[in-house]
Amino acid sequence: MRILVVGGNGTIGKAIVAELQGRHEIVTAGRSAGDFRVDTADPKSVTELYAKAGELDAVACAAGNVKFGPLESMTAQDYDVGLRDKLMGQVNLVLAGRGALKPGGSFTLIAGTLSGDPIRFGSSASMVNGALESFVRAAAIELPDHRINAVSPTVLEESMESYGSYFRGYEPVPVKRVGLAFSKSIEGRQTGQIYRVY
Amino acid sequence: MRILVVGGNGTIGKAIVAELQGRHEIVTAGRSAGDFRVDTADPKSVTELYAKAGELDAVACAAGNVKFGPLESMTAQDYDVGLRDKLMGQVNLVLAGRGALKPGGSFTLIAGTLSGDPIRFGSSASMVNGALESFVRAAAIELPDHRINAVSPTVLEESMESYGSYFRGYEPVPVKRVGLAFSKSIEGRQTGQIYRVY
Repeated sequence: MRILVVGGNGTIGKAIVAELQGRHEIVTAGRSAGDFRVDTADPKSVTELYAKAGELDAVACAAGNVKFGPLESMTAQDYDVGLRDKLMGQVNLVLAGRGALKPGGSFTLIAGTLSGDPIRFGSSASMVNGALESFVRAAAIELPDHRINAVSPTVLEESMESYGSYFRGYEPVPVKRVGLAFSKSIEGRQTGQIYRVY
Repeated sequence: MRILVVGGNGTIGKAIVAELQGRHEIVTAGRSAGDFRVDTADPKSVTELYAKAGELDAVACAAGNVKFGPLESMTAQDYDVGLRDKLMGQVNLVLAGRGALKPGGSFTLIAGTLSGDPIRFGSSASMVNGALESFVRAAAIELPDHRINAVSPTVLEESMESYGSYFRGYEPVPVKRVGLAFSKSIEGRQTGQIYRVY
């Protein structure tokens, strides 16, 4: 397969590439690194990415920013960061990718545990991850030629030094398990699934 | 209690008012009807609403638009309608309402069954309803002085003439049951709940 990994240079992106590169041809894209540059929040940039990337069997996304902060000081603009970037950035990859993805190909998006298991300061991440899960379930029934799933990890062992204090009591998982979940989505046949890596 | 019902003149809004008005003082707001005019998608309009509405014990929202359409023709702008209006409109009511709502008061938002049980043409509604459910669960742990819940109805008996053809096989519910779920949220003590009216 020829697989595009968006956010391929991040912690999760590298784990996806490590899991898949022995068996498949991988191309990567990112805001500041990778084979191609893309700002997923900009539909035009996403369309240009697909024009450059050529025919694909799978698109995996591990990119997307959200703003963390106490609910009492969060503004509509703060929520907009996550809605534009992590949510619509990934939706843009699906909308524009239908033409680039071969029949039978798959989209695999990145969500996260906060959709159902919230932390303080995480209301925007919860919102965005919940939106992504429901979008994936809905899009799966309107994509007759393609599959779509999401991977929803909890906090990573590799991120505990940075984020551990926000996730007290959460059992961290090795990022390798997140790479495996992407492999299950891409190399399996399921659609409309949320693969929870907890 | 003094209760603000946003969208109080719609099918669901009227059922909320009918359920509560015998026991409480109700004020209504809406885009084109009600005691006060508000465009919930505009944070400034929401702030002005609270300045006019005075002290409140509860805010109930039954307002919010989303765009329906086939996934293959949906654009980022189409999804933006639901993100601005049904999602951020209700989030704006929470963010700006913290100051107007008395300690112990509650927010009750409107979501919908499509978060988990999608229909064709409904990917934006699914996205928005999933976002609302996760936001409510997250906001509940960051609102020490207030409660927040969502009501998630399936298609209404009263809407079958308009929407029935999109919801074949769904068991419609009378809107009175949706009014009861709002009463449970407002007159009960739970927080972070999604009251499913299926």
